[in-house]
Amino acid sequence: MGTEFRGAGWAGVRGLIVDMDGVLWLGDRPLPGLAEFFALLRKREIPWILATNNSSKTPESYAAKLSGFGVAADPGRILTSAGVAAEYLARQSPPGTPVYPIGGEGLKKALAEKGFVFSDRDSRWVVVGWDRELTWDKLALASLLIHRGAGFLGTNPDLSYPTPEGPVPGCGAQLAALEAATGVSPVVVGKPEPEMFRQALALLGLPAAATAVVGDRIETDLAGAKRLGLKSILVLSGVTTTRILAESGFAPDAVFPDLPELSLSLESVEAQGFSPASGKPASSRQ
Amino acid sequence: MGTEFRGAGWAGVRGLIVDMDGVLWLGDRPLPGLAEFFALLRKREIPWILATNNSSKTPESYAAKLSGFGVAADPGRILTSAGVAAEYLARQSPPGTPVYPIGGEGLKKALAEKGFVFSDRDSRWVVVGWDRELTWDKLALASLLIHRGAGFLGTNPDLSYPTPEGPVPGCGAQLAALEAATGVSPVVVGKPEPEMFRQALALLGLPAAATAVVGDRIETDLAGAKRLGLKSILVLSGVTTTRILAESGFAPDAVFPDLPELSLSLESVEAQGFSPASGKPASSRQ
Repeated sequence: MGTEFRGAGWAGVRGLIVDMDGVLWLGDRPLPGLAEFFALLRKREIPWILATNNSSKTPESYAAKLSGFGVAADPGRILTSAGVAAEYLARQSPPGTPVYPIGGEGLKKALAEKGFVFSDRDSRWVVVGWDRELTWDKLALASLLIHRGAGFLGTNPDLSYPTPEGPVPGCGAQLAALEAATGVSPVVVGKPEPEMFRQALALLGLPAAATAVVGDRIETDLAGAKRLGLKSILVLSGVTTTRILAESGFAPDAVFPDLPELSLSLESVEAQGFSPASGKPASSRQ
Repeated sequence: MGTEFRGAGWAGVRGLIVDMDGVLWLGDRPLPGLAEFFALLRKREIPWILATNNSSKTPESYAAKLSGFGVAADPGRILTSAGVAAEYLARQSPPGTPVYPIGGEGLKKALAEKGFVFSDRDSRWVVVGWDRELTWDKLALASLLIHRGAGFLGTNPDLSYPTPEGPVPGCGAQLAALEAATGVSPVVVGKPEPEMFRQALALLGLPAAATAVVGDRIETDLAGAKRLGLKSILVLSGVTTTRILAESGFAPDAVFPDLPELSLSLESVEAQGFSPASGKPASSRQ
């Protein structure tokens, strides 16, 4: 694999923000070492938040998926870009505010849980997540609302979504269409934008410098982490290959081929005195 | 109105490329001086081409519309961005080539007339026009085809389309979504890109310097004209006001409040000896 643990990747780390698809599983297939990774975190009392840019599913459905893989997870520890968008909106506008959502059940449920009501008219916000039932009529209504002054919020900037047949348009492509039509840029809450990381840090109760982001995507997980001063830990079990990493010019704080290697490293750091309180630096390993 | 005929706007002009909506009519309402304008062109034997970025209607339907306003027009003199796209494609790929169209009847008819066949699989080209029946499935299929190497052609770059309620997404917004999803930029044939002007010049049999574009939009009609060395004649009967013109910093070769004033100017130039053969410069007028 040719990967290595680069420098003091775990230095000062007391909690983790972990991406899911490409790190914990690929589609419906759990990746090796999944249950052992969570067992290690539990044993060492390392707090974690799971964070995904996917806006189409609920935290409860991710908890159920993890449960199927033998991992007990509180949905309150699982952030989706839909939930982060709803939380962001709840700090801007009171319950009962009319909003116009473009997206699936995950987005609608997250907004409804915060007390927002859905309206085609006089909506104060247009909230856009990935929507495989997108139509021209939805885009036109969103454009008119934004033109009339509604806020424009996007769950995540991902331009495309990989499928076995190739890439299909992601939420970011929908946002591009609306930005083109209206001349208005959306506020986006998903990675690599700061909002999702900020909400995760608030839930962890940790400062950025004491927290590491574990992810498989340089441009979202790791770039966002670095920008906010979090540690960036890359696993090569998802979309990023060593070649992509080399060509990116991005230097993560640590790189692991997969979850078992990451857990081994975390255990070895533990053995040297890593704890939530001490946060001692890790030694480097080959 | 405060407009004026600026400098030698008609100098050397022997033929016209005329935009339709905002110049000849607004929606279904003919603008004053429409029939008289065409009568003057006929009397003076000034050849013309009508050219629109709208891809949703056929040349025949525009000819029928003009007929309803008392103007006889050969559909062969009417260019739509759909027809220009089909003609462009016909020079790239032989009849029978499978293409995947996103757009209305105007686009499908233009492509079918050139012998292209429609296919969801193995299409060599994705051809995108304005489509009020756009769906996520259409965008996804187009993305996959472009990913597999299909050419990516757009009829026109207009980002939005004005309606009484405000702007709704135009073809350019659809292109933005696909460009975001695929990372591939489309070839666009509509104004201000050169292809539509080139096809119009070929039909007129005139060089760029002997041809004027009459339009109501600075960023499409006039910017495209200037870039190709055609004269740019602005009428203020459409989307452009004197204020928009002033703020644009664009200097058309001539500006008229409407079609009657343009016709008057053309007649006065005629009176001074304008003809297809001589192309004498016009005097300026207030």
